[in-house]
Amino acid sequence: MSIGDLSINLATVRPQYTMAQAVDACLAQGITAIAPWRDQVQTTGLKEAASIVRTNNMRVTGLCRGGMFPATDKAGLAAAIDDNKRAIDEAAAIQADCLVLVVGGLPKGSKNLPAAREMVADGLAAILPYARENRMPLAIEPLHPMYAADRACINTLEQALDVCDLLGDGVGVAIDMYHVWWDPKLYAQIARAGASGRIFAHHICDWLVPTRDLLLDRGMMGDGIIDLRAIRVAMEKAGYRGPQEVEIFSSENWWKRPGEEVLATCAERFLATCHLQEKSAKGE
Amino acid sequence: MSIGDLSINLATVRPQYTMAQAVDACLAQGITAIAPWRDQVQTTGLKEAASIVRTNNMRVTGLCRGGMFPATDKAGLAAAIDDNKRAIDEAAAIQADCLVLVVGGLPKGSKNLPAAREMVADGLAAILPYARENRMPLAIEPLHPMYAADRACINTLEQALDVCDLLGDGVGVAIDMYHVWWDPKLYAQIARAGASGRIFAHHICDWLVPTRDLLLDRGMMGDGIIDLRAIRVAMEKAGYRGPQEVEIFSSENWWKRPGEEVLATCAERFLATCHLQEKSAKGE
Repeated sequence: MSIGDLSINLATVRPQYTMAQAVDACLAQGITAIAPWRDQVQTTGLKEAASIVRTNNMRVTGLCRGGMFPATDKAGLAAAIDDNKRAIDEAAAIQADCLVLVVGGLPKGSKNLPAAREMVADGLAAILPYARENRMPLAIEPLHPMYAADRACINTLEQALDVCDLLGDGVGVAIDMYHVWWDPKLYAQIARAGASGRIFAHHICDWLVPTRDLLLDRGMMGDGIIDLRAIRVAMEKAGYRGPQEVEIFSSENWWKRPGEEVLATCAERFLATCHLQEKSAKGE
Repeated sequence: MSIGDLSINLATVRPQYTMAQAVDACLAQGITAIAPWRDQVQTTGLKEAASIVRTNNMRVTGLCRGGMFPATDKAGLAAAIDDNKRAIDEAAAIQADCLVLVVGGLPKGSKNLPAAREMVADGLAAILPYARENRMPLAIEPLHPMYAADRACINTLEQALDVCDLLGDGVGVAIDMYHVWWDPKLYAQIARAGASGRIFAHHICDWLVPTRDLLLDRGMMGDGIIDLRAIRVAMEKAGYRGPQEVEIFSSENWWKRPGEEVLATCAERFLATCHLQEKSAKGE
């Protein structure tokens, strides 16, 4: 059934489960795809993580995350580049579809966003040959503008795609609804991303009104105001038919509930709110 | 002295002062420009407010705020249009430089941002003739994307200027650093706004890292990461030499301090962080 198009980013059940437990809990719900974070993989051990994926025949829709390039000096940027190469190795080891990149914000003490953006471009250019050698697609995730200072200075899909165009093959975008729903150019840029074959991932959750915390108050699909179905229609028109990956940081709600309830709700809401029936997907 | 280029948006000292008290407190610091909110004017009484402005020879850099167009039905939109005409009357009565427009977000129950944006365009078109008759410039304020759902669905300077281009004369933008600092197209769009004579206001404050509340945790200039001086240079290169208006919502910090301290800090930080000396302004 269509639940096969659902992936769970393991941040969604971070407090509840280890990676191994999360895989078991997903399979119990019929969910066969995950996206772990590097710290979760490292805690498990890379070999063991790869074995869990392989043994259970899980699809890995992405490894979170590389990036974080801007630094106060050249040594810092060089260290970030090295760390990203290790992330590429790890993503390859667990057979991830892509390495998700949160590119980083302002270096400590800096107010110079244009300079941070140049460092990101330099960092990406430095790791791309290694990613190509290892056949690991790099997925730049544009982050919501409220994270421009401290997490990622790539803040629109248009900006991410402009960077991709400069870099060439092997790099694309992870389009996370939470970060892009507000963008007046969203539909045009989704079409552009699809036309150039650059949509590597589709992340879902919802934007709550009110939002009580800038980082940890993401909503379950259907509880907020994002028109998830309309955007999915646009994604499929643009040629992307891949999984939708649920990524919810929710310190006061979902992280406090039993993991089983969270996963069951993800599955139910995915089918009710995000997934396109074959007919409607073709009809649009 | 250069303090004459400073204006205080009265939201900055909302809990401390009535409009009359705020004007006295500003004058005591040598500050000769303000921007009140409609509720502050209405509490004071429109005639009295106009008299306070005139008697004290204050410049009014804007009236906050019109807008809020999207509604669940046509009657709601019509009511918003009527209310905006009253706001134009009030702005004219206090001799404001412009009426600042926060255009409104999603109507209750809607997830349809494109439709909300159409309602905004319709509302603007409906009030513009009345604004022109009354010689009251309309300043669209693009709001940070984190407010797209509940406050304003115009979220970038580019989007605001596209709307202005469709509408013609009498409408421009209020460029508030808090809302636009993150935008990769900021400098290009400031140049565009200046070239078309559409910069009607320049609002300042700072983006704190971390930001603890989406609405009420704005920072004093110099306490955050916005490159206020670099952006002012761009504003002046684009031909805007008007006042900089401090607008700080700060429930846990500045709203709890004595008004006198807040205003003195605004003046000091404005001179230290935002104001361009004649030389540097010309030199850039």
